[in-house]
Amino acid sequence: MSLSLNQRTTQRWSVPEAVAGCLRHGLEAIGLWREEVAEHGLARSAKLVRDAGLRVSSLCRGGFLTAGGLPGEEGRRAFAAALDDNKRAVDEAAELGAACLVMVVGGLPGVKPGEPLPGAFSRDVAGARRQVADALGVLAPYAGERGVKLALEPLHPIYCPDRAVLSTLGQALDLALAHPRAQVGVVVDTFHVWWDPALLEQIARAGDRIASYQVCDYLHPLPADVLLGRGMMGDGVIGFPPITRAVAEAGYTGDVEVEIFNADIWAADPDEVVATMKDRYATVVTATP
Amino acid sequence: MSLSLNQRTTQRWSVPEAVAGCLRHGLEAIGLWREEVAEHGLARSAKLVRDAGLRVSSLCRGGFLTAGGLPGEEGRRAFAAALDDNKRAVDEAAELGAACLVMVVGGLPGVKPGEPLPGAFSRDVAGARRQVADALGVLAPYAGERGVKLALEPLHPIYCPDRAVLSTLGQALDLALAHPRAQVGVVVDTFHVWWDPALLEQIARAGDRIASYQVCDYLHPLPADVLLGRGMMGDGVIGFPPITRAVAEAGYTGDVEVEIFNADIWAADPDEVVATMKDRYATVVTATP
Repeated sequence: MSLSLNQRTTQRWSVPEAVAGCLRHGLEAIGLWREEVAEHGLARSAKLVRDAGLRVSSLCRGGFLTAGGLPGEEGRRAFAAALDDNKRAVDEAAELGAACLVMVVGGLPGVKPGEPLPGAFSRDVAGARRQVADALGVLAPYAGERGVKLALEPLHPIYCPDRAVLSTLGQALDLALAHPRAQVGVVVDTFHVWWDPALLEQIARAGDRIASYQVCDYLHPLPADVLLGRGMMGDGVIGFPPITRAVAEAGYTGDVEVEIFNADIWAADPDEVVATMKDRYATVVTATP
Repeated sequence: MSLSLNQRTTQRWSVPEAVAGCLRHGLEAIGLWREEVAEHGLARSAKLVRDAGLRVSSLCRGGFLTAGGLPGEEGRRAFAAALDDNKRAVDEAAELGAACLVMVVGGLPGVKPGEPLPGAFSRDVAGARRQVADALGVLAPYAGERGVKLALEPLHPIYCPDRAVLSTLGQALDLALAHPRAQVGVVVDTFHVWWDPALLEQIARAGDRIASYQVCDYLHPLPADVLLGRGMMGDGVIGFPPITRAVAEAGYTGDVEVEIFNADIWAADPDEVVATMKDRYATVVTATP
């Protein structure tokens, strides 16, 4: 396994700045975001990372597939729009040569990420989960034809209302196993799954379905905006070595992305952040206990 | 099933006020808290509820069993102190004739509920879980001898660092099943478990191990103090009917406690809160979809 910078960790950096930062710090891989890639241009971004010799460990992100759970025409339209957008994301991942497209599957139908509950939304969490399975039935073969692997990311249950009704690694695996391994895998992101009593067993079960291993710490208490509760490894409550060992024993040999959403880290000098990240990766994430 | 007032919902009320409130609103059961019971006096509280003809649907709460995971003498002392306190809680539950003693098992060793991370604590979540199992080995027979049932409450994973390393109903059941059914059961609290993709299946598996069904809603977004994210049923994201139906189909015929921690509800007139609670119980919790 080797370390990769998810560009959200240094979000002040554009794609060219992040690529230059990776090279300056001796990193071999980068995780890209669609928004930043679009800003720099898809073809230019693809050429830039290729010329730099960097692997693209992931493209973030597709997903938000659940709005089809809204009633009637609104639901049908939302489902079709989600499929279209995800097909574009697959195309982008293909052009970038990304190892996978990270999928944040979406929350309860009608609930928008980070926003208060709207007047009308669906409380049918089981139905929302069926929507995700239905959408994968369309998107997995589409991705497979383009050589892209969809990476289903279970999110911490705190995000179940608005970001992902996919809440455990076991549940993500159940979905993934309905499709060929080249088409659908899973993400193990320490922030989201560290608490899961079934974690080590599900990592072993996942085996070569692990498409991405993402690390950051879980801060406690969480900040008021829970999206920003991701911390530098060592600053929170997660014991990394057993998780890292389990991922390695499952056979994962890909890149390990550090993806941190954190107001203080975003305010800091990105070069210092990357230096700290490299240090903590060695002393905290891969340390032998 | 019938409705019970957990006295934390109307926490401005003392034990006598809460008992009077239950009678005024035609409720047959009350869930008590150790702190309020101690304030009014254990024997007096027991006599008061008995004379009022109320069932005590639960006593809240025992637990915080994980501090034994701290190293050396500190850990040993903390574990012994936790056992002593829990034995007292069992004795209190016996005297009150409570249907169960709710157990909030404790978080990572050294992390105090609602407080920032201390300088030294344990990140060994698996070890903390073993501590809980060890403590139950002592407490379950002690409770059994006194006719008290321990009710293991899985808490939402957001509370894993500081309140409960017991995070799913399946995990709670695995622990409970190591003991006789008269000694150890589980709590199904909608706030904590609504997101769990295995919920309905685990409720069915639980069967007569369900010692308590507690309801309140899950607010979104959560308030800055996540402990207060519990809302009146209907005010959040939970779809209650499938959960209530599963609990009933599992054979549960006990009381349904409404337990809400919420700054606005605590500031409101308790009689209005109870009236709203009764209304929402009928229209939201037990509604047929």
